[in-house]
Parts: sequence; structure tokens; C-alpha cells
Amino acid sequence: MNKERMLTGDRVTGKLHLGHYSGSLKNRVMLQDQYESFVFLADVQALTTHFERPDYIRRHISEITLDYLAAGIDPERTTLYIQSLIPEIAELTIFFSMFVTVNLLRHNPTVKAEAKSSHFDEMYYGFLGYPVSQAADITFCKATVIPVGEDQLPHLELTRKIVRRFNELYKPVFAEPQALLSETPRLIGTDGNAKMSKSLGNAITLDSSTEEVTRTIKRAVTDPARLRKNDPGHPEICPIYAYHQAFNPLESAEIQEACERGSIGCAACKERITASLEELFTPMRERRAYYAARPKLVDEILISGTQRTRAIASETMREVRDAMSLNYF
Amino acid sequence: MNKERMLTGDRVTGKLHLGHYSGSLKNRVMLQDQYESFVFLADVQALTTHFERPDYIRRHISEITLDYLAAGIDPERTTLYIQSLIPEIAELTIFFSMFVTVNLLRHNPTVKAEAKSSHFDEMYYGFLGYPVSQAADITFCKATVIPVGEDQLPHLELTRKIVRRFNELYKPVFAEPQALLSETPRLIGTDGNAKMSKSLGNAITLDSSTEEVTRTIKRAVTDPARLRKNDPGHPEICPIYAYHQAFNPLESAEIQEACERGSIGCAACKERITASLEELFTPMRERRAYYAARPKLVDEILISGTQRTRAIASETMREVRDAMSLNYF
Repeated sequence: MNKERMLTGDRVTGKLHLGHYSGSLKNRVMLQDQYESFVFLADVQALTTHFERPDYIRRHISEITLDYLAAGIDPERTTLYIQSLIPEIAELTIFFSMFVTVNLLRHNPTVKAEAKSSHFDEMYYGFLGYPVSQAADITFCKATVIPVGEDQLPHLELTRKIVRRFNELYKPVFAEPQALLSETPRLIGTDGNAKMSKSLGNAITLDSSTEEVTRTIKRAVTDPARLRKNDPGHPEICPIYAYHQAFNPLESAEIQEACERGSIGCAACKERITASLEELFTPMRERRAYYAARPKLVDEILISGTQRTRAIASETMREVRDAMSLNYF
Repeated sequence: MNKERMLTGDRVTGKLHLGHYSGSLKNRVMLQDQYESFVFLADVQALTTHFERPDYIRRHISEITLDYLAAGIDPERTTLYIQSLIPEIAELTIFFSMFVTVNLLRHNPTVKAEAKSSHFDEMYYGFLGYPVSQAADITFCKATVIPVGEDQLPHLELTRKIVRRFNELYKPVFAEPQALLSETPRLIGTDGNAKMSKSLGNAITLDSSTEEVTRTIKRAVTDPARLRKNDPGHPEICPIYAYHQAFNPLESAEIQEACERGSIGCAACKERITASLEELFTPMRERRAYYAARPKLVDEILISGTQRTRAIASETMREVRDAMSLNYF
């Protein structure tokens, strides 16, 4: 029996961090046997917001590839490719754009949020079309399983709408992709901000050294009401406790209780999460070092993944052209 | 010395007619020695308005190709290609779309006119992006000479803006294309409507037989104030006189005078333009018959033109990727 095809990717706008790991990478690593896995480096999507910084995008292609390989994405089981090297995605985006109204795009939550803060007219055309290109990203390789967080469900619904419309207008070329909902909550930043993010400076990136992890955890905020070690703590507002839940789950219940009782101090609690993170990071660092020392191998992984993907893309476009009567000669 | 590269095309939304001939085809035929000529069948552009009728577009690809060849476009001197077979145009459209604002697109006169008649939100995303894809159409093959009518100058200005912005943001890959302004006035319809158009039913298509030309001219409106043959006429409002100017220029001054004096009747005047049109159509019909009997040859013309074009497209994209730091491996 053929496995279903699963697709995910990351915008190439910065190194990956623990938030990415717990929110999606870990899951992708786990699922690479269950599904035929495709993971892509979204450099074209990155251009929608970073078109003035192409060098920045370029630099992060290798960084993120190393992050993937370090995290345990296995190039034998997961196809890794670079979005901009698949011209079929651009072609499909153009075809979809013919029958998607501006109105539909304005209902996309990301566009809505952006339109609130700046004037709609000042929005870039490519940014406005993000859901159209996302529909192309998902459908060109006929992926049917899309791991997403709750906040991305409206995006996937737009893709499903676009797919239905294409199938109605022409021929039923595409299956509607299904969401594989992740239940992992968003990871809190080391400063207590609800979202860990490189740009907020509250992230632990996946390439951190032992010293960096230790130092960042030491500096992380905890429950501000706890002045002395024996004060009862409020783990539910503490980033360190969130990290125990995410990366030290077997001990997190005990730690919660000890914190609330005031029987464990923040320093000791931080030492324990640092030890857990070290357990997580050690094999990642080994894999990273292996691949970082072999840039040619990393290139080959991306090249062969891109080739494999283009073969699928080209077959899909054959069907699309056939459905749209653009199958000349 | 290298010739400059000239590019034009037609939306694949109907057969070509005398308006196309006098407004652009004739000029293209004349210029094919002076410039390195590219003429394309804009099937993707046609989708912006005809996405629900792909079969219609498909059917007109061969019709328009025959119109081109019949009109005297010489495949040895002019490269003919089909827009949808050049994926590089889609890629370049996507790259340009990143830095073009929705606001700039709303100032495009075509979009403005459309937005007036229907609600802006109900506009299709692809239609809104027409100037972006037009910029890609022109630049991907580095065309610098673009024959246009006065009404298309704002479109070309948008392309020039997009080109300047790309060159500023990345590297100076593109030269700004220049308009080659046609002074030919728009051809009036046989019903007196300012514009000859297939959809208005007032056109003489280039594939018309002798009978069709004769009949259509016979039925064409003339100066309604002329009830008798000797009434003085007003040639400036008469389609037949406009056709004499366009297709019988050596005699048009004489005819104008005779009409104004009332010394030539409408029937005789129509016979004379029919004869002139027959002179124009006869060699066109011969060429059409030649190619219509050789569909394989026509396919080969399009295939080899498309291949030649893709070689240029691929070289341009190499430069574009280099400029945008997307030149991996």
C-alpha cells in the first residue's frame, strides 16, 4: 500500500530554534516512516517579506538544512528540496491566480492582520497572493497530509477552496489536502513572551553550544513573585516549567509540585532543564558536526531531493496542462 | 552589430481581424528585418479573462498562428512562441510580485476601468497582477523595443518602473524597454463603432473568404445623411472611408473628394474597397492555405520558436537568480 504524502516547510528567514523543534520538527522526524515525507526550504515565501535581503535568505538555506539534518530529518526517508528550484510551483501559482478573487485573499488572517497595521494598498502583490502560492506549494506534489498548528487552519482551508475550484473548472486533478493538527502548544520565549522567536531575542537556536544553552537558561525569566527559593512558585507562568513540559516530560509533574510547594529553587530547576536540553542537543550536535564537515554531501542531499521533487512536479503539470487544455503538441 | 530585440504578442481570445492587421501585424511584418523579432501567443494572459473557457483559448492558438503566417510573419525571421510553454515567465512574475505594491497595480488604467464597473474586491488576483506578468513577458527575453499604441503607454511605463526597481534592489540585469509608438489610428468597426472587435460582430477577420469580405462590406454602415448617391458625403464618419485610408491609401484622397462632392455613390465606393481588400487578402489566403494544409509544419514552427525562446529565458533566469542570490549549487 502506498503511503500518503506529507508536506511541510519553513520560511527561510532565520535559524530554527526550540520552538520549531517542539512545534514541528520533532513531529516530522517521528512521522517520516508513517508518511512519504517532503520538507521544503521556502525561499520564495521568504521573499514576500525579505525581498530586500536576498543574501540573508541565501545564508539561511544552509543553516536550516543543517538544522533539519541535526534534528533527525533523514534524507533517506524525507525528501528535502528548495522551493525556488521548482519552477512548476510558480506556473501553478499563476494558473490558480486566474480564478481566485482579491476578496478571498483579503480574508486570509495573515493579510487581514497586515492590512490592519498598514494600509491595504501598500501591501505587496506577492504578499497578498501568499495563499495562492501556498496552494501551489501543497498541490504541485499532490501532498494530502499537512501538519499544521491551529492558527494555520484558515490557510489550509483556502488551499482546499482553491483545489475544489480548480477541480470544478477543469478536471479533478487534485485531492483536497487534510490538516494533521499538532496539539503541541506554542513554545514560550525565555523572556516570558508567548512566542519564542529569533527576532525577539528570546529563542534558543538549534545550533546552540552547551555554553549558550546554559547561559540562556540562566538568564531566562521565571516567576517574578518568587523572591526566595522557598516562596511558592507559579509554574504555569514560568518559561522554565514550559520547557520541562516540552523537553523533560517525565519529570515535569514532580517539578510542578516542587515549585508550587517551594521545595525546589529556580537555580536548581534551571540546572535540571539544562541537563535535559543537553540530552536533546548532544545527538543533534553530533549530526550537525557530521554534516557541517561535509558541505558537498549536504548539497547532494538538496540536489537529489530537488530532482526527485521536480519529477513529481513535472508529472503533475502534465495533468494540469491536460486538464486546462494547455497540452500543446 | 546586433539588432535590437522586438517583442509583441496577442491575447489568444479570438481570431485576428483587419484592426489587428492595420494596427500591428502589418508593422510587425515590416519590422522583422530591422529587429530581432519575437511574437508570442498570450494564452496565459488570455486566462486572466477566459479561465472558464480553456478550450476556446486552445482552439484559437492554431487560428492565430495561421493568421500570423498568413499576414506575412516569416518564421525564419520572427520567433513565434506560446507563452504558457515558457515557465521562466511564471517564475519571473513571482519574483517581480514581491516588490510591486497593490497600490501601483490599482493605478493601471485597465484595472481602474474594471474596478469602476465591478467591485474591486471581486477582481481576480491574476487580473490585478496583469502588469506584473506583462513586465515578465517583456523582460524575460530582454526585449527592448515594444511596438505599442498610445493607449498602452501606461502599461509599458509600469514595466519600466518594475525593471528599475529590480535593477536597484538586486543587480542591473534588465534594460528599460522602449515604446515603438504606432501612429496608426484604431480601426473603426463595420457598424461605425470606434473599435473593430470580434465580440462586437463588426470585424472582418483575416480568414474571411471573398464572399465574406464582399458581404460584410456591402452591409457596412456609411454616412447615414447620404440618402441619394449625389448627396454630399461626410467621409470622416464613414467606416468605408477609414478602410480606404488604411488599405487603399493611394486613392483615399480622391475618394474623399468624390464623396464630399457627391460624385461617387456608396455602392461604387464599397466595390473599390472590396477590390483593395481582395488585393490584400489574396496572398494572405494563399499563405494560409499553404500552412493550413501542413499542420505538422505549423507545430514545428511553434516548437522550434518556443525552444529558441526558452534558451534565452533560461539564460536570463541564470542572471536573475545570480542577482537575487538564488543561484544555489
